[in-house]
Amino acid sequence: MQAEVPSGNWGRWGAEDERGALNLVTPEVVLDAARGLRTGKVYSLALPISRSRTPAVWDRPPPERFTRTAPQDLVEREGSGGQRVGSADDMLVLPSHAGTHIDALCHVFEGDSFYNGHPVDSFTTRRGAGKCSIVRTGTVATRGVLLDVPAASGLESLAAGHVIAAADLDACCESQGVEVLPGDAVLIRTGWLEMLAADASTPPFPQPGIGLEAAGWLADHDVCLVAADNSAVEVLPFDGGELAVHVRLIVHGGIALLEHAWLAEMAADRCHVCLLVVGALPVVGATGSPVNPIAIG
Amino acid sequence: MQAEVPSGNWGRWGAEDERGALNLVTPEVVLDAARGLRTGKVYSLALPISRSRTPAVWDRPPPERFTRTAPQDLVEREGSGGQRVGSADDMLVLPSHAGTHIDALCHVFEGDSFYNGHPVDSFTTRRGAGKCSIVRTGTVATRGVLLDVPAASGLESLAAGHVIAAADLDACCESQGVEVLPGDAVLIRTGWLEMLAADASTPPFPQPGIGLEAAGWLADHDVCLVAADNSAVEVLPFDGGELAVHVRLIVHGGIALLEHAWLAEMAADRCHVCLLVVGALPVVGATGSPVNPIAIG
Amino acid sequence: MQAEVPSGNWGRWGAEDERGALNLVTPEVVLDAARGLRTGKVYSLALPISRSRTPAVWDRPPPERFTRTAPQDLVEREGSGGQRVGSADDMLVLPSHAGTHIDALCHVFEGDSFYNGHPVDSFTTRRGAGKCSIVRTGTVATRGVLLDVPAASGLESLAAGHVIAAADLDACCESQGVEVLPGDAVLIRTGWLEMLAADASTPPFPQPGIGLEAAGWLADHDVCLVAADNSAVEVLPFDGGELAVHVRLIVHGGIALLEHAWLAEMAADRCHVCLLVVGALPVVGATGSPVNPIAIG
Amino acid sequence: MQAEVPSGNWGRWGAEDERGALNLVTPEVVLDAARGLRTGKVYSLALPISRSRTPAVWDRPPPERFTRTAPQDLVEREGSGGQRVGSADDMLVLPSHAGTHIDALCHVFEGDSFYNGHPVDSFTTRRGAGKCSIVRTGTVATRGVLLDVPAASGLESLAAGHVIAAADLDACCESQGVEVLPGDAVLIRTGWLEMLAADASTPPFPQPGIGLEAAGWLADHDVCLVAADNSAVEVLPFDGGELAVHVRLIVHGGIALLEHAWLAEMAADRCHVCLLVVGALPVVGATGSPVNPIAIG
Repeated sequence: MQAEVPSGNWGRWGAEDERGALNLVTPEVVLDAARGLRTGKVYSLALPISRSRTPAVWDRPPPERFTRTAPQDLVEREGSGGQRVGSADDMLVLPSHAGTHIDALCHVFEGDSFYNGHPVDSFTTRRGAGKCSIVRTGTVATRGVLLDVPAASGLESLAAGHVIAAADLDACCESQGVEVLPGDAVLIRTGWLEMLAADASTPPFPQPGIGLEAAGWLADHDVCLVAADNSAVEVLPFDGGELAVHVRLIVHGGIALLEHAWLAEMAADRCHVCLLVVGALPVVGATGSPVNPIAIG
Repeated sequence: MQAEVPSGNWGRWGAEDERGALNLVTPEVVLDAARGLRTGKVYSLALPISRSRTPAVWDRPPPERFTRTAPQDLVEREGSGGQRVGSADDMLVLPSHAGTHIDALCHVFEGDSFYNGHPVDSFTTRRGAGKCSIVRTGTVATRGVLLDVPAASGLESLAAGHVIAAADLDACCESQGVEVLPGDAVLIRTGWLEMLAADASTPPFPQPGIGLEAAGWLADHDVCLVAADNSAVEVLPFDGGELAVHVRLIVHGGIALLEHAWLAEMAADRCHVCLLVVGALPVVGATGSPVNPIAIG
Repeated sequence: MQAEVPSGNWGRWGAEDERGALNLVTPEVVLDAARGLRTGKVYSLALPISRSRTPAVWDRPPPERFTRTAPQDLVEREGSGGQRVGSADDMLVLPSHAGTHIDALCHVFEGDSFYNGHPVDSFTTRRGAGKCSIVRTGTVATRGVLLDVPAASGLESLAAGHVIAAADLDACCESQGVEVLPGDAVLIRTGWLEMLAADASTPPFPQPGIGLEAAGWLADHDVCLVAADNSAVEVLPFDGGELAVHVRLIVHGGIALLEHAWLAEMAADRCHVCLLVVGALPVVGATGSPVNPIAIG
Repeated sequence: MQAEVPSGNWGRWGAEDERGALNLVTPEVVLDAARGLRTGKVYSLALPISRSRTPAVWDRPPPERFTRTAPQDLVEREGSGGQRVGSADDMLVLPSHAGTHIDALCHVFEGDSFYNGHPVDSFTTRRGAGKCSIVRTGTVATRGVLLDVPAASGLESLAAGHVIAAADLDACCESQGVEVLPGDAVLIRTGWLEMLAADASTPPFPQPGIGLEAAGWLADHDVCLVAADNSAVEVLPFDGGELAVHVRLIVHGGIALLEHAWLAEMAADRCHVCLLVVGALPVVGATGSPVNPIAIG
C-alpha cells in the first residue's frame, strides 16, 4: 500500500491510528505556541451562521435555527410567584460541512479506504463513521501560521481559479519572515471569502486555492491541519482530479482541512503567528463539524 | 433599575453593551494566561454528542446526526475516471442547550429585560435574539480556574442537592493554592457528571450546584464565565427561586454560564489553572450553542 | 364582536368550536358525494416534495429528506442467518406550510384573536397552538367542486396578479353546469402552478387568485374549505390589505385554505365534481400540514 | 427467481412496475366502494403526532414540531396600517416510519432486491430510493375491510405475541359477514394500540400480529394494502425470521403495509367495510410517510 502512497502517513502512528497528523502536536509544541504570543488579541475565524450568511457553494441544505421556547411563552408559567423569570432556547439544523467547518479524516476516501487504510465499510448510514470520526480529531490547539498569499504579491485577493503553488508558499514565508514547523496549523488566505462577503453575487466557481504541488509542500512540512478562506482549501475546479488535494492531505496525510475560515482580521493586523484553538462538536459518527476556530495573536 | 440589582453590571460597559463580563478579558489577561501555562496538555471539556450519551435532563429533544452522503453512494459517481474517490457528510439536529453548551446572555430574562436592560421584545420567535445572542459572547479565551469542590473536602463528588456556598469556594481556593482574578473563567467541579457517566440511571434531580450566595461571590470576583459539570451550574432544585442563579449571573451580571462541562481529566491531573478557549457556533439569533471547550494546562 | 365581522361564523357552532365550517359537512353530505361519483378515477392533488420541486415562494426553509438507514447498512446485521433481509428509512424536515399544504384555523389571526375569538395567547412558541391546531381540522372528506376559472374564459391560465371576482365564480359554475352547495370544498384553478411547473423561472409574485369579493361569495355559499393551485388562494400582492382573504375566510369564516393544489389532471379530464379527501398529519400544536389531497372522480 | 418466490407478484404488472398490488385497484373497485357506503361517517385512523403520543417502539427519533413564526412576532410587522393581522407557522421533523405511517415498497429488501427485482443499488443515501419510493404508492383509495380479530373471539384485545393465523382471518370474515376481495385494503385490529393508549407502560415487545401463514392468506386474496393497529403488522418477535411478513408482503407481493392504524372507533361502531383513502406525502426518494388514513363508513 505504501508503494501507492509514497509520501503518505499510513502506519506512521500505528495501524489503529485515527488521529493522523495531530499526533505531531506535542505538549511542547503547544507550550511554545502559547509562550510565543505577542498581543493577546483574540480572533474568531468563523462566519456567522444563517441561511443568508452561510456560503451556498455546494448543494447542502442551508443552516437553520428555530426557536424552541420564546420569552413570550412565559404566559404559561405565570403564578410562579410574582417575579417573572424565564428562559429561551432554540434548535439548530446544521450541515456538518457548511459555513466555517472542519473535515474529519473520514470525510474523504479513496478506493476502499479512509486514512490509514481504515475500510470504507466501517462507515454506515445509520451510525455514520465507525473510524476517523470528528470525535477523533475535533480538539486542536497548536501554533498557527497565516500565509497571506495575495499580500505577498501585493494583491488584495487571488484571481478566481488561481492555483497556489509550492513556490507561492515559500515566497509567503519569506516575505512574512515565518517558518512552517512540524505540528503547525497553516492558515492560507486567498481573499476569496472577503470578496464573497463584499459581493454576494460572487460566483461559487472557480475559486482560488492550493494545487497538488502545494499540498505536497504542506505534507512535507508535517503540518497538522490546513485551513483556508475558501470552500475546499484546494482550487476549484479541482487541480489533478476530483478532490485531489483532499485525497492527498486527508486520506494520504491524515491532515484535517478547515474551510471558510475568516482570515480578514488577522491579515489586516498582519498577525502571522498565533495559537490556534479549534473545538469541533464531538458528534458521534460525524464526518466533520461547524466550528468557531479561535486564534490568539 | 440599579436599585433593584445593586451588585449587577447593567450600564457598566455602556447602555448598548451585549458582551457583559467578557469585557473584563483584556489582551493582558489572555497573555498572562498563555504565558503561565505549565504542561501544554490539551483537554476537551465536551461530552460526546449522541442520543444516548447526551444527558436527558430537561425535555429538550435529543441531538441527532443523519448521514447525508455515504461512501457507498459512490456508485452514482463512477465513470469519474478510474480512480474512485468521494466524500461523506452529515446533517446535525441539535438543541442549542443540550450536552456541553454555553448560554448566551439572552438565554434568561427577568421581568421585561435581558442583561443590561435589553427588552425581551428584542427577541422574536422568527429571528430569535435581536440582542445578546450567542454571536456576541461565543468567542472566549481567558484564564480558567478549576475549583474542585468535592476534592477540597476529600470527597469524590458532592451529594445530590448539595448547595455550594461562598465558603466552599474560598476553602477550595485555599486548599488548591489558587486565586480567582477579574476576567477569569471559573470551572466548578461537583462530580455529578462523572456519577452520571458511571451510572446512567442516576436521576437528573436533585443535583449539586452553586447557590445564590456563591453566585454573589463569583460576581464579586468579576469572573467572566462560570462553567460546571452539572446541568445548570446552580443547584437543582433551585435555591432561592426559579433560575435564581441564572438571573443573578446572566441577567444581573452579564456572566455567561457553561453547563455539562467534563472536568474529570483536569481534576485527575490536578490541573487547576488553564487557558480556557471556547468557540461557540455563531448562529445568528441563537440563545446558546453546543461547544467543545478546550483547556490547556 | 359580530358587528365587526358581520358575515362571519363566530359563535355559530358554539363558543368553544375549533372546527369551523367543517361542521357543515354532515354524513349526508359525504354520502351524497360518494354516491354521486362517476368515474372512480383517483387523483393526487399534491406536488412532489423535494428541495427543487417545492415552490420557493416565501422565505420558508426548503423541505429535506435524509436517509436514516440505507440498505447498504446491512453489513452491520449480517450473521442474521443466511438470508439477507433488511429495511431502509428516512427523516423528513418539512415546513408545515410548504408545497401542497393545508392551513389550520390558527394559522392566521386578527388583532388578538383567532377564529371564533380564541385568543392569540392560546398559542405559545413551545407548544404551538392550544386552540384550532391542525388536529382539529385535518380530517376532511366532502364533495369537491373544481372551478376552472381560466377555462371558463377559454384561457389556459390567468394573468399574473389577476383578481378573481365573484362574477368569475358565478360564470364558472354556469359554464361548467355545477352548483356550489353548503359543505362543499371548492377547488379553484388559476393555472399558475402549471406555469411554474412548465417554467421554473416564473416569478413568485404577482400571482392570480381570489380577491375579497370572491372570498365573500365563498363564505356566503357556506363552503367548508377552499383550495387553489397558487401560493395563497388569494391574489398576490394582497387585495384589500395584508392577508385580507385569509382573514376573511380563516379568521371570520372558520374556512380552511389549501394551497399549491395540483389541479391540472382533474381539469384536463373536465372532472368538475369529486369526493375530496384530505388527511393532514395530526401534529399536536401545528398550524398546518403538508398534505396529499385525494380527489375521486 | 420466480422459483424462489412462487406466490409472489414479480413481473405480474411488467418488469418496470413500482406500484405493486395497487394495480389491482381499478376505477370499478373504487366506484363500488364509494357506492356501497352506508353511514357517511368519517374516521381518522391516525394517532396524534407528538413526542409523548407517538409510540417509541424502535430506536427512531421522536417526531418534533417547532414554531417558526409565532403570533407574538407581530411586533416586527407593526405599522402595516392599523389593523394587526399576521400568521404563524412551524417546522416538522418527522421520521418517515413513526406514528401512523405507510411503508413504501422500497422500505424492505431481500438479498439484492426490492419488490419486482429492482436492485438495492437503486437506493443511495444521498437521494434515497430511485425505485419504489413512496411517490409510487402514496395515493390509495379503495374498499377497506376491517377484520376485528379479538372481537371474533369475544376478546377486547389479543395477547402479547399472539400469532394471527389464516384460520383467524377466515373466522373473522365469517363472524362479521364480510368477504375480502381483490384490490381491498385489509385493516387488522389486534387491540394492541388501544392497550398502549390506555397504559403507556405497555412494553413494546412482544406484540400480537399476523404470522407468515396469514400473510400468505392475504397475498392469495390479492389485497392491495394491509394495515394494523400494531407496530409492524406482523407479530413481534418475528414469526419465521427477521421481517418475514414484511418480506412476504412487500418484497414478494408488492403489498404496502400501514402501521399504528387507530381502529378503535371503527371497531366500536362495528364499521367493517369502508372507503379507505390514504394520501402519503410524496417526498421524493422516501421509503414511507406518516399518514392520516381516512375511512368513510
